[in-house]
Amino acid sequence: MLYHVRMDVHPPHGIDPALFDRLKAEEKARAQALQREGKWVHLWRIAGQYANISVFDVESHDALHDILSTLPLFPFMEISVTPLARHPSAISTK
Amino acid sequence: MLYHVRMDVHPPHGIDPALFDRLKAEEKARAQALQREGKWVHLWRIAGQYANISVFDVESHDALHDILSTLPLFPFMEISVTPLARHPSAISTK
Amino acid sequence: MLYHVRMDVHPPHGIDPALFDRLKAEEKARAQALQREGKWVHLWRIAGQYANISVFDVESHDALHDILSTLPLFPFMEISVTPLARHPSAISTK
Amino acid sequence: MLYHVRMDVHPPHGIDPALFDRLKAEEKARAQALQREGKWVHLWRIAGQYANISVFDVESHDALHDILSTLPLFPFMEISVTPLARHPSAISTK
Amino acid sequence: MLYHVRMDVHPPHGIDPALFDRLKAEEKARAQALQREGKWVHLWRIAGQYANISVFDVESHDALHDILSTLPLFPFMEISVTPLARHPSAISTK
Amino acid sequence: MLYHVRMDVHPPHGIDPALFDRLKAEEKARAQALQREGKWVHLWRIAGQYANISVFDVESHDALHDILSTLPLFPFMEISVTPLARHPSAISTK
Amino acid sequence: MLYHVRMDVHPPHGIDPALFDRLKAEEKARAQALQREGKWVHLWRIAGQYANISVFDVESHDALHDILSTLPLFPFMEISVTPLARHPSAISTK
Amino acid sequence: MLYHVRMDVHPPHGIDPALFDRLKAEEKARAQALQREGKWVHLWRIAGQYANISVFDVESHDALHDILSTLPLFPFMEISVTPLARHPSAISTK
Amino acid sequence: MLYHVRMDVHPPHGIDPALFDRLKAEEKARAQALQREGKWVHLWRIAGQYANISVFDVESHDALHDILSTLPLFPFMEISVTPLARHPSAISTK
Amino acid sequence: MLYHVRMDVHPPHGIDPALFDRLKAEEKARAQALQREGKWVHLWRIAGQYANISVFDVESHDALHDILSTLPLFPFMEISVTPLARHPSAISTK
Repeated sequence: MLYHVRMDVHPPHGIDPALFDRLKAEEKARAQALQREGKWVHLWRIAGQYANISVFDVESHDALHDILSTLPLFPFMEISVTPLARHPSAISTK
Repeated sequence: MLYHVRMDVHPPHGIDPALFDRLKAEEKARAQALQREGKWVHLWRIAGQYANISVFDVESHDALHDILSTLPLFPFMEISVTPLARHPSAISTK
Repeated sequence: MLYHVRMDVHPPHGIDPALFDRLKAEEKARAQALQREGKWVHLWRIAGQYANISVFDVESHDALHDILSTLPLFPFMEISVTPLARHPSAISTK
Repeated sequence: MLYHVRMDVHPPHGIDPALFDRLKAEEKARAQALQREGKWVHLWRIAGQYANISVFDVESHDALHDILSTLPLFPFMEISVTPLARHPSAISTK
Repeated sequence: MLYHVRMDVHPPHGIDPALFDRLKAEEKARAQALQREGKWVHLWRIAGQYANISVFDVESHDALHDILSTLPLFPFMEISVTPLARHPSAISTK
Repeated sequence: MLYHVRMDVHPPHGIDPALFDRLKAEEKARAQALQREGKWVHLWRIAGQYANISVFDVESHDALHDILSTLPLFPFMEISVTPLARHPSAISTK
Repeated sequence: MLYHVRMDVHPPHGIDPALFDRLKAEEKARAQALQREGKWVHLWRIAGQYANISVFDVESHDALHDILSTLPLFPFMEISVTPLARHPSAISTK
Repeated sequence: MLYHVRMDVHPPHGIDPALFDRLKAEEKARAQALQREGKWVHLWRIAGQYANISVFDVESHDALHDILSTLPLFPFMEISVTPLARHPSAISTK
Repeated sequence: MLYHVRMDVHPPHGIDPALFDRLKAEEKARAQALQREGKWVHLWRIAGQYANISVFDVESHDALHDILSTLPLFPFMEISVTPLARHPSAISTK
Repeated sequence: MLYHVRMDVHPPHGIDPALFDRLKAEEKARAQALQREGKWVHLWRIAGQYANISVFDVESHDALHDILSTLPLFPFMEISVTPLARHPSAISTK
């Protein structure tokens, strides 16, 4: 099932740069692994913002929450989730 | 270039049902033609709402506006557009 | 899977009372049928408002959308959907 | 009486991790005790967010406030409360 | 129990003035009866607006909803309800 | 004259607990004195929140501001003030 | 006492132009009379909008409400009222 | 002086199409005349919306209001105005 | 020209009290000087809030920005500016 | 292609003034270089706020994001981007 997810990243002022760089590297590795697994099917940068719009394809809300809540940057993210259904005019699903 | 577009449809109370059905049929035909042309690359229904989230791949803002503003349902739609850039962690662009 | 759904009903001014009564009766029959099927698991009235908070247990976003979008009062409703995951402190799921 | 309660948890940046873990453990114990007492009747995680939607069944506003305001994580929570009445189409109350 | 209720009245343009006057007269009679019964304990006009702030003292959410939803002006009102608990610094409850 | 005042208290993270307890004790003493003087006529806790809804009966905006702005917790409060007029359906003023 | 009042005028589509012109003329006459009485002390147009910012100097909330609620355009106006106190740095009050 | 102005056009449902087309033609003529006079210095369409972002260069708020409030589509427009000052990093003003 | 300006002051928690007192004293001196120059024509305290509503009479947006952005408390203020035009019903301008 | 960009700068309390001054100087140099390259075509200060409204002329969303996300003050800025299309009434594009 497809979930539309917007993630806005708000690094707190004064966070240790080395720590945050490490978290960002882990986040990238996790994101790319999930993309290769076909779970994180779209990942776009919102132009001009430290935010992304993604689409996940996972089997349940729990599965989605397990992925999002264990992302290294989760503590610094504002996330909104929108369940996507099939559109009657869509000629493909993904 | 990719544009994230959210469209909320608000049919006014009292509109002639036959007219609106015709407009919806035209909208579907246009949407499917644009999908086949590769311009309307993603079209999803927001579960529970008369709204969709779409991604368009067109060459300019003018091209996007020409498409959206000539959609049959445009007069009844609330539309927000978000330009999408390439995400550094994305392993593919679409 | 559980979906938290809020429905605010906005009957347009001037709608034919007999028509709206018929729609409300159909809505009630549909709601009660879905409850007996175990799909509409909770239905509460927000005190003081023509609105409800519900929880649906259905297998997919598409299933949820098919139910909500075919409710007789759907054209007059403002709906927001929130996917619910299992809470680590919950001792039961429903 | 039923109260719909949404709790968004905002751990402040820089809080002592050990302290916060202890508070979370206490919170879990309290939440599970209240569930066993039948006061905290529903507890769901909002998928993708450090937030929950709950339903409490207690005898008064004061009782609800006493519970919520003494939760270990109360100082870090944004809480909204919505009183729930019986819906005319509901075939059960809980 | 005490409920803080804000009611904003939005008479639709074009409503039959005679009908609306009759509804307003019925609303006033009902409001005054409920005040004499001790259920509607405070009723104030928000200066400059067709809105009021009230406090109700009733035994349950259902009781509150039955009162509010049967007010003659209910179809034209935007209502928000806030449950009030006893404040630790209050020297009286009402 | 009656003023409806909502006060949301936001204690900053890291404030010295002993200091804040002292301020809260002073706040309580001031609130109770003002209630005995008949200026702070209603003080209710919003169930589930560190916030109150109050009604003040003072002779002018300046008088109200002098009271609110010298409350010990004023620096940590978000305050909104709504002037209350007599409602045509009210059978008493307080 | 001084009240800051913002009035946004929303003439409904389809209102009889002659009626609305008459109401506007009455509104102007009333506004100018109240200015000459010293009650409506400031009246400015918000540049680019059918809205004004005013300051009233009247003795009570009731007096303000009586003025505003009987303005000919009141039914078409969205009004917000802010009580103004004396500023410690102000070298004059008006 | 420069004013940033956003105009969102909301044609009411049911307006006479011939009338609205005439108003739009008048609007275009006025806009082009004002551009040639150097008053309306920038006029851009917001991609995907019946809205524009403009910059006006006029000598006063009154002058701006006279222009905007007499635009043929003014009754159907939601307008916000933002005064623009010279930016210290700008290498030109327009 | 007249500018309506609202200033909400948000002193950050933990700022050095002596520093902030000095800034407030400088702010007061500047405000009173500008009032005597006839630039800061109205300055009112919003009752119950650390905020003011002011009206400035200056010759340009740049002039206004130079004044506001050099106020000692500017770094701690949230400011909104509304250009005021002459109201057709106003019998005086200030 | 033209992008309308609003940038609100929120310097965190307690940031090292010397560091922030250096960042501001770098920001000014970058902004002026981009203006000379014809990419940053308009840059205006919003009167009364630490914010600007700009228009960029670049060939893609990625190009825009590369510019904005590498601005020295990017970590302290809240940015919103609006794609601008050609307006049918515009007599020039820039």
